[in-house]
Amino acid sequence: MVTIVGEKINTSSATVRNAVEQRDAQFIQGLALAQAKKGADVIDVNVGLRPELEPDAMRWAVKLVQDVVDLPLAVDSPNPATLLAGLQVCREPQRSWANSITVEQPRIDRVLPLVVEYGCRLVGLCMDEHGVPRTSAERLQLAQRLVDEVCRWGISLDRLYVDVLVEPISVEPRAALVSLETVTAVRAALPGVQMIISLSAISFGLPGRHLLNRSFLPLLLHAGINVIILDPLDVSTMAAVKATQALLGADPHGLDFISAYRSGLLSRSRRKETP
Amino acid sequence: MVTIVGEKINTSSATVRNAVEQRDAQFIQGLALAQAKKGADVIDVNVGLRPELEPDAMRWAVKLVQDVVDLPLAVDSPNPATLLAGLQVCREPQRSWANSITVEQPRIDRVLPLVVEYGCRLVGLCMDEHGVPRTSAERLQLAQRLVDEVCRWGISLDRLYVDVLVEPISVEPRAALVSLETVTAVRAALPGVQMIISLSAISFGLPGRHLLNRSFLPLLLHAGINVIILDPLDVSTMAAVKATQALLGADPHGLDFISAYRSGLLSRSRRKETP
Repeated sequence: MVTIVGEKINTSSATVRNAVEQRDAQFIQGLALAQAKKGADVIDVNVGLRPELEPDAMRWAVKLVQDVVDLPLAVDSPNPATLLAGLQVCREPQRSWANSITVEQPRIDRVLPLVVEYGCRLVGLCMDEHGVPRTSAERLQLAQRLVDEVCRWGISLDRLYVDVLVEPISVEPRAALVSLETVTAVRAALPGVQMIISLSAISFGLPGRHLLNRSFLPLLLHAGINVIILDPLDVSTMAAVKATQALLGADPHGLDFISAYRSGLLSRSRRKETP
Repeated sequence: MVTIVGEKINTSSATVRNAVEQRDAQFIQGLALAQAKKGADVIDVNVGLRPELEPDAMRWAVKLVQDVVDLPLAVDSPNPATLLAGLQVCREPQRSWANSITVEQPRIDRVLPLVVEYGCRLVGLCMDEHGVPRTSAERLQLAQRLVDEVCRWGISLDRLYVDVLVEPISVEPRAALVSLETVTAVRAALPGVQMIISLSAISFGLPGRHLLNRSFLPLLLHAGINVIILDPLDVSTMAAVKATQALLGADPHGLDFISAYRSGLLSRSRRKETP
């Protein structure tokens, strides 16, 4: 079964950014609750602000989110000080996620000790100081380096999630294929490694983004992605998750699909809000 | 690019059956026109009635459909006499399709001479007198037999479309996976062969069928299916076709996707019916 990380608490949205700056706890908690209700397994918390303000904002956000949902949190920042701030206040750091590191030695050297100390999970991106590689072979090399580093620090491999990354097809027509090839290559070369991807980047710059996202999702699950970062409030995307699991035999006879469909979770027009 | 065969003219629908029995030309022509407008490349014509009535109905239907759309027709019947009746009245039989034969010698011996005589295309099903095989290895064997028969009759391999078949996941949880494995196996063993599939059987017996169909479609195209039989009037399915072609690099930078989206073809809510 795929794990869903809810992406909504992210200051790349102006509304969320404003809520974080104003310390609007109710708004942030509302986003966490709504995502949990729609099937998120993990709640991502990204409060990217000016670096010196970020650790404080992360502490604030993590505390209030875990007050309303009993789900693991992904503390999301490229900044090791912010990851530390978030992990320090997580009630159960060993089920939390540090999201994320790139394959750059200074970041590895600062974040892996935190993963050891807090026993948390770790997302490692297949990119380094040169950016995101164009080919699956190069991304596989970076996945291999992440595995080597994690092993070197004595972290169990099941704590690592390799992010195979995705670029917009509006920029690079082979972008989806390269990500899928990377999943296949990592699955073959590093069979014990779990993989994560952020769904919606694929459709950046195009209209009708949900149409592209929901068609990409079955391809990712079939290729072998274990975790997807997405918007659980998008009915169309969640319907693709449930449908694909039924198609791939992960939901025998579609029992979970049928139950989600009947309860109105999979379509805007069949919402069951009154008895 | 994938070829779309429009499935709407089929007497498995009671409305269509009634229209055929009543010889309601306007209704049948309306279905042909609507499918052409929504992007069908080929119009399937299935007038399955009592066998002795079928050839007459097929002649009637083929003539009136080709009066309103300039697209190839797929003459669809398991009955060789009906295939012959349809091909006889096709204006351009060499671009028509005989749909279909099973791997059963009496059918092969009756239909392949028609394919030679009319120069038409042929759909061959991966099933024999024992039914639809459960495994991709057995379906591949039947695909191989179809190729052998076609070659034996001197028919160019590019006239053959192997139907890999699909069973409902409500009956067989591995059904989608077996079809996908068959596509991959045929692609590897018989690289020159084109493959066709009928999309909607996958979701038979389940609610929310369009949600399952539209998630299965990207998997089929990525595996290497060349032709899909589907309902072009289902906006959600056609959106999956366009989105998947953009994802797989068959529509660089999504130009065709953007154009279809802007003209309102991909969503019910953005129909562009007024200027």
